[in-house]
Amino acid sequence: MSEYYDGVLDEVMERVRPYVGAGTVADYIPQLAKVDPEQFGFTMATVGGDLHSIGSATTRFSMQSITKVFTLALVMGRSDHNVWARVHREPSGNAFNSLYQLEFENGIARNPFINPGAIVVTDQLLNDTGDAFTALRDLLREETGSPDLDTDHRTASSELATGDRNRALAYLMSGFGNMLEPVPEVLDHYVRQCAITISCEELALAGLLLARHGRRADGTSLLDQGQARRIMALMLTCGTYDAAGEFAYRIGLPCKSGVGGGILAIVPGRYSLAAWGPGLGEKGNSVSAALALEAFTDITGFSVF
Amino acid sequence: MSEYYDGVLDEVMERVRPYVGAGTVADYIPQLAKVDPEQFGFTMATVGGDLHSIGSATTRFSMQSITKVFTLALVMGRSDHNVWARVHREPSGNAFNSLYQLEFENGIARNPFINPGAIVVTDQLLNDTGDAFTALRDLLREETGSPDLDTDHRTASSELATGDRNRALAYLMSGFGNMLEPVPEVLDHYVRQCAITISCEELALAGLLLARHGRRADGTSLLDQGQARRIMALMLTCGTYDAAGEFAYRIGLPCKSGVGGGILAIVPGRYSLAAWGPGLGEKGNSVSAALALEAFTDITGFSVF
Amino acid sequence: MSEYYDGVLDEVMERVRPYVGAGTVADYIPQLAKVDPEQFGFTMATVGGDLHSIGSATTRFSMQSITKVFTLALVMGRSDHNVWARVHREPSGNAFNSLYQLEFENGIARNPFINPGAIVVTDQLLNDTGDAFTALRDLLREETGSPDLDTDHRTASSELATGDRNRALAYLMSGFGNMLEPVPEVLDHYVRQCAITISCEELALAGLLLARHGRRADGTSLLDQGQARRIMALMLTCGTYDAAGEFAYRIGLPCKSGVGGGILAIVPGRYSLAAWGPGLGEKGNSVSAALALEAFTDITGFSVF
Amino acid sequence: MSEYYDGVLDEVMERVRPYVGAGTVADYIPQLAKVDPEQFGFTMATVGGDLHSIGSATTRFSMQSITKVFTLALVMGRSDHNVWARVHREPSGNAFNSLYQLEFENGIARNPFINPGAIVVTDQLLNDTGDAFTALRDLLREETGSPDLDTDHRTASSELATGDRNRALAYLMSGFGNMLEPVPEVLDHYVRQCAITISCEELALAGLLLARHGRRADGTSLLDQGQARRIMALMLTCGTYDAAGEFAYRIGLPCKSGVGGGILAIVPGRYSLAAWGPGLGEKGNSVSAALALEAFTDITGFSVF
Repeated sequence: MSEYYDGVLDEVMERVRPYVGAGTVADYIPQLAKVDPEQFGFTMATVGGDLHSIGSATTRFSMQSITKVFTLALVMGRSDHNVWARVHREPSGNAFNSLYQLEFENGIARNPFINPGAIVVTDQLLNDTGDAFTALRDLLREETGSPDLDTDHRTASSELATGDRNRALAYLMSGFGNMLEPVPEVLDHYVRQCAITISCEELALAGLLLARHGRRADGTSLLDQGQARRIMALMLTCGTYDAAGEFAYRIGLPCKSGVGGGILAIVPGRYSLAAWGPGLGEKGNSVSAALALEAFTDITGFSVF
Repeated sequence: MSEYYDGVLDEVMERVRPYVGAGTVADYIPQLAKVDPEQFGFTMATVGGDLHSIGSATTRFSMQSITKVFTLALVMGRSDHNVWARVHREPSGNAFNSLYQLEFENGIARNPFINPGAIVVTDQLLNDTGDAFTALRDLLREETGSPDLDTDHRTASSELATGDRNRALAYLMSGFGNMLEPVPEVLDHYVRQCAITISCEELALAGLLLARHGRRADGTSLLDQGQARRIMALMLTCGTYDAAGEFAYRIGLPCKSGVGGGILAIVPGRYSLAAWGPGLGEKGNSVSAALALEAFTDITGFSVF
Repeated sequence: MSEYYDGVLDEVMERVRPYVGAGTVADYIPQLAKVDPEQFGFTMATVGGDLHSIGSATTRFSMQSITKVFTLALVMGRSDHNVWARVHREPSGNAFNSLYQLEFENGIARNPFINPGAIVVTDQLLNDTGDAFTALRDLLREETGSPDLDTDHRTASSELATGDRNRALAYLMSGFGNMLEPVPEVLDHYVRQCAITISCEELALAGLLLARHGRRADGTSLLDQGQARRIMALMLTCGTYDAAGEFAYRIGLPCKSGVGGGILAIVPGRYSLAAWGPGLGEKGNSVSAALALEAFTDITGFSVF
Repeated sequence: MSEYYDGVLDEVMERVRPYVGAGTVADYIPQLAKVDPEQFGFTMATVGGDLHSIGSATTRFSMQSITKVFTLALVMGRSDHNVWARVHREPSGNAFNSLYQLEFENGIARNPFINPGAIVVTDQLLNDTGDAFTALRDLLREETGSPDLDTDHRTASSELATGDRNRALAYLMSGFGNMLEPVPEVLDHYVRQCAITISCEELALAGLLLARHGRRADGTSLLDQGQARRIMALMLTCGTYDAAGEFAYRIGLPCKSGVGGGILAIVPGRYSLAAWGPGLGEKGNSVSAALALEAFTDITGFSVF
């Protein structure tokens, strides 16, 4: 079986190779703009915990929006009812940091995977726990078994320095009465979450939380099966910004991408997949990582449909 | 096994019963407004062709937007490449008949399951076959084995009489150069498609085309497996108007609804489900049919995630 | 005094000369695209009826949206109360043929000088008189003393052939219940109005209707003083598409432009000015005609402010 | 002449009396919500400096957005060219504090009289002078001859406490690179400007700056005649939020309103008019002050058209 997986990954690598380095490294966060674009990694983790990797699968990269999945999981594990009064669950049809829909919908974000929605979820986690960043970092440390997994402070500072649009989003929601904690504090936690660095192998391990329908690495449950399914449904419909329809069409798996170039994808009940390449396409998703996932589903036939 | 299914359906019925009659019958199409709201039907078809039904599962109702799935299948089977230059594959974030996004996106509709997208798909089918309505009707007759399945001319006339907004959508696209055939002719085929009447049992049979990944009742293939998966991905992300995220969250199956009160849902590789109740919720989806599907997935654990 | 005017006009001509031919001839109406761009005319009419002209002031051009002023005057003279329930009086902040604001505002156009508003006004005039085109043509014939003033049928046909967006606007309003007469009939009158050809001298004479605060050439009153003022207020705030603020800022007179390249401007109580040059700027107003009016107000100091 | 004016004002008072107290006092700024709604004042100032008043014309009220006129005048007097690269001059077609148009137009506000535009103008004045608030306060003190004219610190604090939407607007512009000074500092100056209190008599005196086409009370010129005209053109097209078209239609004078209930109107070359009543209509303009101005123009026939 292991040989089968290795053969699949080799074929994925072969198909992706011409596109390694394609796309544009995110430049609106100065620290991210410094990343070498000619990198690529891919890891497949089975629910049993086996890892199969190709490329730079142990190099850490900035999680960015991929953290939104785990922050949401933490909040759903604690206050599932509260949060859905503050954020909807619909695709947005707009860019990840757009304000206008937020304004029309009275400060209620469309879903937890666009920036305003994720800021609300972070605000809820901060209100629930007193320390949203540490809650997330500790979850990731425990799921990956990497006690040194942490935020990159230069990236976090860099995001804060250029985060005027997130401030605008947060103050707009605050103006509508949809913030519990002070905006600057929430945004501080939010950017430190986003700036956590992780490798493909670690990310695939963390993603098993969903592949195992809510069961953690230590055997306890963070989420029940229904909750885990619902997070995956959100990933499929809203996980890749304004390209969620295209991802569902081409890849057919729940995915969550980040502007650091990572994408997490889940084959429910079976695998967690982590792909990474820093170059982004025009909608902010990694070009090589998306191609790798498309190759994977094409070769293996895995799809939720 | 059959007993198991019957037990499931009984439990679905029990849970839905208090909500039969809930919601509001579509009133913008006069003919639909006359339907008795106190009706409900549900059919589960296995890929082997067995049917399990409860309620008024042989009463015909107006397919309306559910036809969009089959029209798209016919077009994908013939001219898969052409149509995607004319319609995108993203959720819309807006009502099914909204013009403004269409205007901002230069006459390219967001996806094939909102009205402007479906009008473009019908236009393509008309251009491909010379008779879009008959092509669809004949497909449905063959998949269901019901040679008398047909459009309801009063409903079609009623829709034409009140279809100014569809005319506005079609002329707007025509103004952007995105119509091949004359607008009045395309709309005539479009409304006759929508006005086809079908029962839960027939709809479940027709839906097997997708559950069997493109294989028709006669064993030939209309679509290959990848195409069938892609249609189901579109159903999940875009099949229930501006509530697609909510449906994915609650039900976790690819669904397509219509304002006639029907919903088609697919368990890929296994089942085709048809639920019907005329009363609609505020986003235009049947209240009782949605509850029935939610009960079904809750009881059986079937979900794509 | 006449010498003074002639001196002013000479100076206007001198300033405008380098820009004659600048801009782009409207090309979405095929017939307009054939006009020689290297033309320019300017006429100043005093309320006493004296004319002072430079350039091609007797060459006729397509009135296009300038007709909207006179159609509105006819409707206000007959059914001032009825029409304002059907169209608002606010600047639009959007292009002249935009649908999206119309959709958000439930089929009530922002003002009578953008296309949907003017279509409603034409519909009202058609409903009031039975023949909106003839009512307008006869008014213009009488005010100009030109019995041969008429529509250009090739331009009207050309507009009908390319008028899908106007059809979309009209059907959208019809869908909201804001049309009295059948859409195709209203649009037929609308395009024949727009296609009326007129010279600068004739247009300046027709504009005296407003400069004289509603008094017609024959001494009778079409409008009372308050109504004439209100039309001029609408011209200042809404008369030049999405550049009304810029025109008010630079020229300071009530103006109405058309994509045929003409602009009508009024010095209330004193003069009617007609300028014409076929080349349009990016917001659809004639480049040379706007510069001529700006030069005129700069030289003479005439401004309503 | 003085008797004539007094007769006019008596008639204005008579017409307005039934509406004193009508409308709703602004409640989003807590301090403003405490104002007694049953107040009304009106002052007419001639360019010669004579004052004619009725009602509570010496009671001070919060200037709010009326300050935007004077802040713009100060900036145009210093850096007329710089500011227009940062703010447009078109009506907005939206509410005064809307974000969405700002987002679509890349952080360039539609005009200087909606909040984002005025924040940019304040930012420019702060950058030009080092103290935007004092520059404005001193101008108003000098034009009115009231050395005690000042901001109300409780209102300013109250606005800061509830100013999340203004923060959102400012950070959005900052994200687009359209702020020179730090957002919190600019907003501090902005709210202190808005919270300046003034009476009808003082406001009418200050408005003479425009009625005299830029000439100050001490005979020096802050603006040239063209600049003063341009400010009045902006007032007419953009001075009363999303009701500018309606005001131009009904009143026909350049006006600027504030949510404190004041409205400044100018008869160019002749008069400055200040009206005040705390109750606002649905678009944020004082009901009684607007009626008073409409009565005034109706009785006297003064109108720019």
